[in-house]
Amino acid sequence: MNRHALYHAPDSPSCCPVSEHTLELRLRAARGDLVSVEVLYGCKYVFQTERMHKPMRLSYQTELYDWYTVSLELEDTRLAYIFLLDDGHEKLYFSEDGATPTYDFDKSYYNFFQYAYINEADVRRPVPWMESAVFYQIFVDRFARGSTPKDTSYINLPWGEVPRSKSFAGGDLDGITEHLDYIQSLGCNALYITPVFLSPSNHKYDTVDYYQVDPMFGGRDALRRLTESVHARGMHIILDGVFNHVSEHFAPFRDFMARGNQSPYADWFILHGRKPRKRPLNYEVFASCSYMPKLNTSNQAVQSYLINIGTHYIKEFGIDGWRLDVCDEVSRDFWRHFRAAIKWERPDAVLIGENWHDAGPSLRGDQLDGIMNYALTKACLDYFAWGTLDAQSMAWKLSEILMRNPDPVNAMMLNLLDTHDTHRFLTEVKGEREALEAALTLLCLFPGAPCFFYGTETYTMGGYDPDCRRCMNWGDVPNCRDLLHTLAGLPRKGPLDIRAQDDTLILQRGDISLLVNRTDRDTCPDGRTVPARSHILLRGGDPLC
Amino acid sequence: MNRHALYHAPDSPSCCPVSEHTLELRLRAARGDLVSVEVLYGCKYVFQTERMHKPMRLSYQTELYDWYTVSLELEDTRLAYIFLLDDGHEKLYFSEDGATPTYDFDKSYYNFFQYAYINEADVRRPVPWMESAVFYQIFVDRFARGSTPKDTSYINLPWGEVPRSKSFAGGDLDGITEHLDYIQSLGCNALYITPVFLSPSNHKYDTVDYYQVDPMFGGRDALRRLTESVHARGMHIILDGVFNHVSEHFAPFRDFMARGNQSPYADWFILHGRKPRKRPLNYEVFASCSYMPKLNTSNQAVQSYLINIGTHYIKEFGIDGWRLDVCDEVSRDFWRHFRAAIKWERPDAVLIGENWHDAGPSLRGDQLDGIMNYALTKACLDYFAWGTLDAQSMAWKLSEILMRNPDPVNAMMLNLLDTHDTHRFLTEVKGEREALEAALTLLCLFPGAPCFFYGTETYTMGGYDPDCRRCMNWGDVPNCRDLLHTLAGLPRKGPLDIRAQDDTLILQRGDISLLVNRTDRDTCPDGRTVPARSHILLRGGDPLC
Repeated sequence: MNRHALYHAPDSPSCCPVSEHTLELRLRAARGDLVSVEVLYGCKYVFQTERMHKPMRLSYQTELYDWYTVSLELEDTRLAYIFLLDDGHEKLYFSEDGATPTYDFDKSYYNFFQYAYINEADVRRPVPWMESAVFYQIFVDRFARGSTPKDTSYINLPWGEVPRSKSFAGGDLDGITEHLDYIQSLGCNALYITPVFLSPSNHKYDTVDYYQVDPMFGGRDALRRLTESVHARGMHIILDGVFNHVSEHFAPFRDFMARGNQSPYADWFILHGRKPRKRPLNYEVFASCSYMPKLNTSNQAVQSYLINIGTHYIKEFGIDGWRLDVCDEVSRDFWRHFRAAIKWERPDAVLIGENWHDAGPSLRGDQLDGIMNYALTKACLDYFAWGTLDAQSMAWKLSEILMRNPDPVNAMMLNLLDTHDTHRFLTEVKGEREALEAALTLLCLFPGAPCFFYGTETYTMGGYDPDCRRCMNWGDVPNCRDLLHTLAGLPRKGPLDIRAQDDTLILQRGDISLLVNRTDRDTCPDGRTVPARSHILLRGGDPLC
Repeated sequence: MNRHALYHAPDSPSCCPVSEHTLELRLRAARGDLVSVEVLYGCKYVFQTERMHKPMRLSYQTELYDWYTVSLELEDTRLAYIFLLDDGHEKLYFSEDGATPTYDFDKSYYNFFQYAYINEADVRRPVPWMESAVFYQIFVDRFARGSTPKDTSYINLPWGEVPRSKSFAGGDLDGITEHLDYIQSLGCNALYITPVFLSPSNHKYDTVDYYQVDPMFGGRDALRRLTESVHARGMHIILDGVFNHVSEHFAPFRDFMARGNQSPYADWFILHGRKPRKRPLNYEVFASCSYMPKLNTSNQAVQSYLINIGTHYIKEFGIDGWRLDVCDEVSRDFWRHFRAAIKWERPDAVLIGENWHDAGPSLRGDQLDGIMNYALTKACLDYFAWGTLDAQSMAWKLSEILMRNPDPVNAMMLNLLDTHDTHRFLTEVKGEREALEAALTLLCLFPGAPCFFYGTETYTMGGYDPDCRRCMNWGDVPNCRDLLHTLAGLPRKGPLDIRAQDDTLILQRGDISLLVNRTDRDTCPDGRTVPARSHILLRGGDPLC
C-alpha cells in the first residue's frame, strides 16, 4: 500500500458536519492503490466494543490521488472512527497514528479519529439563496447610463469607444436598475457590482467616503432604487467592499499625511518612520500605488469603523452580502470580527473573498463563506484557452479543486471565467465562441454560483484592464443570451461526477451531462460521437442545447 | 521523486507568521527522497521577475516523511513562493498546482503559494508567561487541607486511605495556599487546579453554581487568598472550566426538568421529545451520566452566560486562564466567541483545551491557545511503559506530534504524563522510577509547558479513577523533588533536535542533551555509553543529573 499518499484530518474539509446528524468523511489514497475502503465508527464512549462499518465510495480522482467519500447518518454524534483499507494484498487500519496492520481498540481513545459532537452552531450550511444564485457582474461605469439626470461633466469617453485607465463613460446605478428585465432574461438572479462609494476613479476601488454613494453613479437614492428593485424581483445583490486600502483623499489619511504619528489616525495606517511621505514611499499601500494607502486592519478602531460600514449597508439598504476586495491581504482577525457582526445582523448575508489562491484556512466557518474561484478560472484557461491541460488532466484538476474544501463551501464559491481584473475569456480563447460556450456550460454545472461578467452574452472581447472594461454594446449584436438562460436554469443539486474518456471531458450531475472535446478529431466516449472542438449538453441522454 | 508524499499548505501549520516580518515555512517529502529543497520567494506583485531563494533545512523525520523548514525574514511581507525540489535525479517545482518539471512564472499569480500580507493581529505569538511556565496539577480534595476552619461533616475518607468514587478527603484551596513554598520548591511556577465551583461531588466536574466557590474548598475567600498568594509570588493559576455540561442540580436544569419545553431554559439543553426524563434518557448528557446534562453551547443565551463566567473570574480574581473540560464536545462557534471575550479582557490569559485528539483546526488562532497534549502522553506510554515504540519509532512519533501544529502553538501545549483522568504514569511503567524520571526529563525538554500531576514527586502510584486521585502523602517519603526542580529550570528555548542512534533516543535543545536507553543492553550512541534501561542528561556534554 502506498502509505505516503494516505490522508485524512478530523474537523477539516475531510470531516465536515452538514446537518446535526450527518457527517461527511473523505479519505485520500494513491490513485488506483486500493480496492476497498471502509469506515469503522461508533460512539466514542463505547468504540472499544461497539462499532458499525460502512463502505466508502471512490468519488473523485486526481492525477495522484483517489478520494473516497461517505456520508454518516448518526443518532449519537459523539463520533469515533478509523478506516480499514484494502489494496488487495494487505489490509491496514488507518487512525491518528497512521496506517498499521493491527489496531488496539482497547487503547483507541488515544488515537481514533473523532468528531466529538455535532453542535448545531457548527453545522456547515450554505447560505440558502446562494444555492440557486446565478450572478451577473457589472463594472458600473461601463454597463448602462440611466435616465435620471445627473452632472455629466466628468464623462470623457463616448459610449463604445476604447476605454483607457482614466476614462469615464457615464454608466450608473439607474442604468442597472433600468436593465433588470434584461439581466433576468439571461437567467441571472443576483448582482455583484464593483464599488459604488465616493471615489475619484472610474473603478472606485480607492474609496474617499464609504458613507457616500458616488454622485457619478447616482448617489444613495440610486442605490436605494436599485436595491429595492432587485429585491422586489426576488433577486439578490452584493456590493464590493474595499477594506484593504482607501483613497489618498480619505479624510483620516489626509490627517495622517499632515500630522504623521501625531495624528489621531496614526495607527489607522502602517508607517515606517515618523512622518509619511510619498517619495520614497514610507507607508504601506496597495500594490505600489501611493494613492491607495493600506488600512491597518489589525487596529481595533479601524476594525470597528469598517464593521460599521459592513453592517450599515445591510441595515439601511438591505444588501445581501459583500464581495471583499484584496481579501487575502486583510487581517484574518478582522475578518473574524467582521463575519460575526455581519452574520449577527443577517445570517443569510454572504461573504465572498477576492482570494486568487487556496483559501481553505479562511473557509473554516470563522471568516468567509466562499471566494472568487480563480483556481477554476485557471483550470478553464488551461483547458479551453492554453491547451496546457487535456481532458484527463482537466478532470483531475477539477476534482482536485473540489477536494480543497468541503461540499457546503464548494456550494458557496463564485465561479467565473473572467472579471474586471483579467483578460476577457473570449479573448483568451482567441474568439472561439464554441470554447466560451462550453466553458460557460461547465461553469453552470460546477458546484458553486456561476458569475457572468457583463457583456459575456454579447461575445465581448477584451484584453487586460482597461480593455476588459469596455462599454456594454446595447446594439443588435450576435449573442448567447438564450444559452445563458438555459444554463442558468440547470439544476445544481447533487454530486458532480467528473471523468475523461477518449480525450473527452465528461461532467455529469443528476440527469444532465456535459461532454467536451477540445481535440481536432471527433471523439466517441461511451459510444456517442462528439465532433472535433465541440461540446454536447444532454438531459437524460437527449441534446439540451 | 515520490510526489504522493509532498505536502505544503498556505496559512496553516506549514506557513505561519511568527513576527510581523518573519514567516516560518515547512515542506514535507518522503523520508530520504530529496537531496535538497529551496524556497523561491518574493513580493507577490513582482514575483514573475524578482525572486530570492533560500535553502531549507531537514529538521524533522517521521516514519514516512522528511520535514524541511525555513524561516524567512521579509521586508515586504506580501509573499509569493514556490519550492524547488531535487532528489538527485530530477528537479521539480512545487506550487499550488503540484510538482512539475517546469514552471510558468508569467502565470504564477494564479498558482504560487502565498501569505498575502502579515497583519500584526495575525502573528501567532505564544502567551509570554507560558513560555517559561511549569505547571503543577492539583486535584483539590486530595492535595492538602488548610488551617482555616470549615464545616468538615462531608469528609468521609481518612487522609491517606484508598479513595473511592464518592470519597471526600477534605483537601481545599487553603491547603494549596499553605503549600505554595513546597510547590515552588519543585520548580513549578503555575497551577492548574481541578474545578472549584459549587458541586456535590469530590471532583466538582458537575457544577451547580458557577458563581459560588464550593464551601468544601473554602469558598470565594479561599480562592481569593490562593490567587493573591499565587500572584504575589509571580506565579500563575488557571481554573478548570466545565462548560460542556452541568450538574442535575443546576437551577436552569431543574426548571427544564420540571417544565420541559415550556421552560425558559428549554433551549439551554438538548431534548429529544417534549418533556425530559431520565429513563429512558431523552436529553443529551456527558458520557452516559444523566446527572451531568449537556449544555446547548450553540444557544446564544448559554454562550453569553458562560462567557460572563469566563470573564468574571479573570476580572474578579485575576486568574490567568482556563483549562477547558471536554472541550472537543463544545461548539466551535462558542469557543470563538469565548476566546474573543477572554482575550479582550486579558490578552495574556491562556486557553487550554481538554482535547485528547489532534485539535489542529481549533488551534488556528480563533479558538484555543493549546491543548492537553495527550498525544505526547500516548507516545511516552508507548515508549516507556508498553514497549510498543522503540527509540527510532519514538523519535519519529515525537517529530510527527510537533509537525501537527506550528511552533507558536507547540509552545502553548500542556505536556503531561498523567492526570486525574488516567492511570498514574509510575503505575503504567510498573513502578520503574528510572522510566518515570526519564519521561519527566523528556517532558521538560519538549516544546510546551510541562505539567506535573500532584504526587509525581513522591512516586505516587495509582490506577484509573479513583485510584489516581489518592491523598498526597506529606510524610517523609522517597521523592524526586530535587530532580523536578532541576528539570523545571531547563531552558526551553530554540528548536528541539530529535533522533535515534544505536537504539538510543536522543533529544537535544541548545546545550542540553537527553539520551534514553530503554533496551536491556548498554548502548553507545555517538561514542557515549548509556547503561541498559537508563537515561543521561547532559549540559554541554557533562552529566547534569
